[in-house]
Amino acid sequence: MKYMCKTDDAPLTLDSINEQLQMNPFNSWLRLRMIEGNGAKAWFELPWREEMAGAPGRMHGGVLAAAIDASAFWTLASARGIRGGPTLDLRVDFHRPASGTLLLAGEVLHSGVTVSTIEVKVWGTTNTLIASGRCVFVGRRVTSS
Amino acid sequence: MKYMCKTDDAPLTLDSINEQLQMNPFNSWLRLRMIEGNGAKAWFELPWREEMAGAPGRMHGGVLAAAIDASAFWTLASARGIRGGPTLDLRVDFHRPASGTLLLAGEVLHSGVTVSTIEVKVWGTTNTLIASGRCVFVGRRVTSS
Amino acid sequence: MKYMCKTDDAPLTLDSINEQLQMNPFNSWLRLRMIEGNGAKAWFELPWREEMAGAPGRMHGGVLAAAIDASAFWTLASARGIRGGPTLDLRVDFHRPASGTLLLAGEVLHSGVTVSTIEVKVWGTTNTLIASGRCVFVGRRVTSS
Amino acid sequence: MKYMCKTDDAPLTLDSINEQLQMNPFNSWLRLRMIEGNGAKAWFELPWREEMAGAPGRMHGGVLAAAIDASAFWTLASARGIRGGPTLDLRVDFHRPASGTLLLAGEVLHSGVTVSTIEVKVWGTTNTLIASGRCVFVGRRVTSS
Repeated sequence: MKYMCKTDDAPLTLDSINEQLQMNPFNSWLRLRMIEGNGAKAWFELPWREEMAGAPGRMHGGVLAAAIDASAFWTLASARGIRGGPTLDLRVDFHRPASGTLLLAGEVLHSGVTVSTIEVKVWGTTNTLIASGRCVFVGRRVTSS
Repeated sequence: MKYMCKTDDAPLTLDSINEQLQMNPFNSWLRLRMIEGNGAKAWFELPWREEMAGAPGRMHGGVLAAAIDASAFWTLASARGIRGGPTLDLRVDFHRPASGTLLLAGEVLHSGVTVSTIEVKVWGTTNTLIASGRCVFVGRRVTSS
Repeated sequence: MKYMCKTDDAPLTLDSINEQLQMNPFNSWLRLRMIEGNGAKAWFELPWREEMAGAPGRMHGGVLAAAIDASAFWTLASARGIRGGPTLDLRVDFHRPASGTLLLAGEVLHSGVTVSTIEVKVWGTTNTLIASGRCVFVGRRVTSS
Repeated sequence: MKYMCKTDDAPLTLDSINEQLQMNPFNSWLRLRMIEGNGAKAWFELPWREEMAGAPGRMHGGVLAAAIDASAFWTLASARGIRGGPTLDLRVDFHRPASGTLLLAGEVLHSGVTVSTIEVKVWGTTNTLIASGRCVFVGRRVTSS
């Protein structure tokens, strides 16, 4: 199927990550885009549009949760070369109403033999913390063929 | 704005809840629908469609999280007459891959003076537990005018 | 060491579970005791004493969290014969102040190949819900020798 | 009662915070001690002793959870002058086995009108991340008399 994630170990460049993000139907709907990654952290941009609203002009908490989930997955992949399995658990604290383009900053808190824990902070345009989330993945390292 | 939640205290019938669910842009995208409520619990149906996928044929965890968030909100409203403010925090444990139409069962765990905690279980078509989540709301009782 | 958990597959009777609970130094401090288990759920009793307080006459939230953690571990062991590894994550919602002897009811929400999720509800003497928690364990089935 | 928290607005010096920590029976059992606070973050020390064990030489996850809860409370008080009500919810991710003296670093993620969210990271002696937790408090600002 055309939107299946690549499971080979092709180098994860910013372009290849964004290409794979777009192959995932719901991430594609989100138009989430990775904008930078430095081997430890990764940053993503989530543009606002009206159908994401949960209240007038405010992003639905579930859309934020989905963007956190996807950002966490790709933070782990780009920072550690670990492809997370399905998310094990997801937690989001909503601090302020979200509107406009958002910046998501992902960071690997811990990556162990069995599971990895990723923290994602969501920042608004005026540099305010909108939400902060965590995802736990059962992951496996992408091995060379 | 036309999709703003009604804040008056019109009786919350199944029809009026579903009407309000549809006025929320992202809930409308989800096509989430409340199918029953008995004053203590509430049940919702989430139909599958391809653009909800995170992997081929499997619902994106974020879409599930969003449906849990919305179901929790309307469980609290229908069961206790409390209109939650924005969700304070959301947690989801993903137990199994989700596909097909899902049934979400919401239950008020506790509804106190300041906050309310709602549990939502997501069931698949073969009666298997797909995910289980919790939402905490700062809520206020809908008072009579 | 005398308080190490037994890792053999001796049948988990109520007596053997309570014996093992007591071999764990902090569980022993808690005086937590399993009172019933039926293969799907398990019940535990936590007696109050003054040094557990976080405020006068009220149990410290951390003591409750510890009792939830231990109850979840032994619910999984008694209900499914799975010995959880170290707890992966723990979450507690505190609903009401806790005082007096508490009853903890553990239930396996899901037990998969890799991880198991356990829910624990804490009930007060007047049948009020004090707290509700969840623990995720990376577990391995206790195999016959 | 002698261990009740002071509710007046006496300046929160390191000494007064540690004095109040010790008046709380279970925090006193923990021997948790605040070692520094700078108006935004706070650091605490938790000395190891045998009765804290959940397995030989390893701290019980519940003891860690309790120390995270107490550290979060006093991080909020010292950093923002907000006295949290009872903890609303507590979440802990356990990353590595804990042993020896631990350092807990608390940080206010968000402090709003109604609730405050505090993050606490637990560091081991070899500068490894042992656990990371979050607490949500319904708090009220300590006002001048």
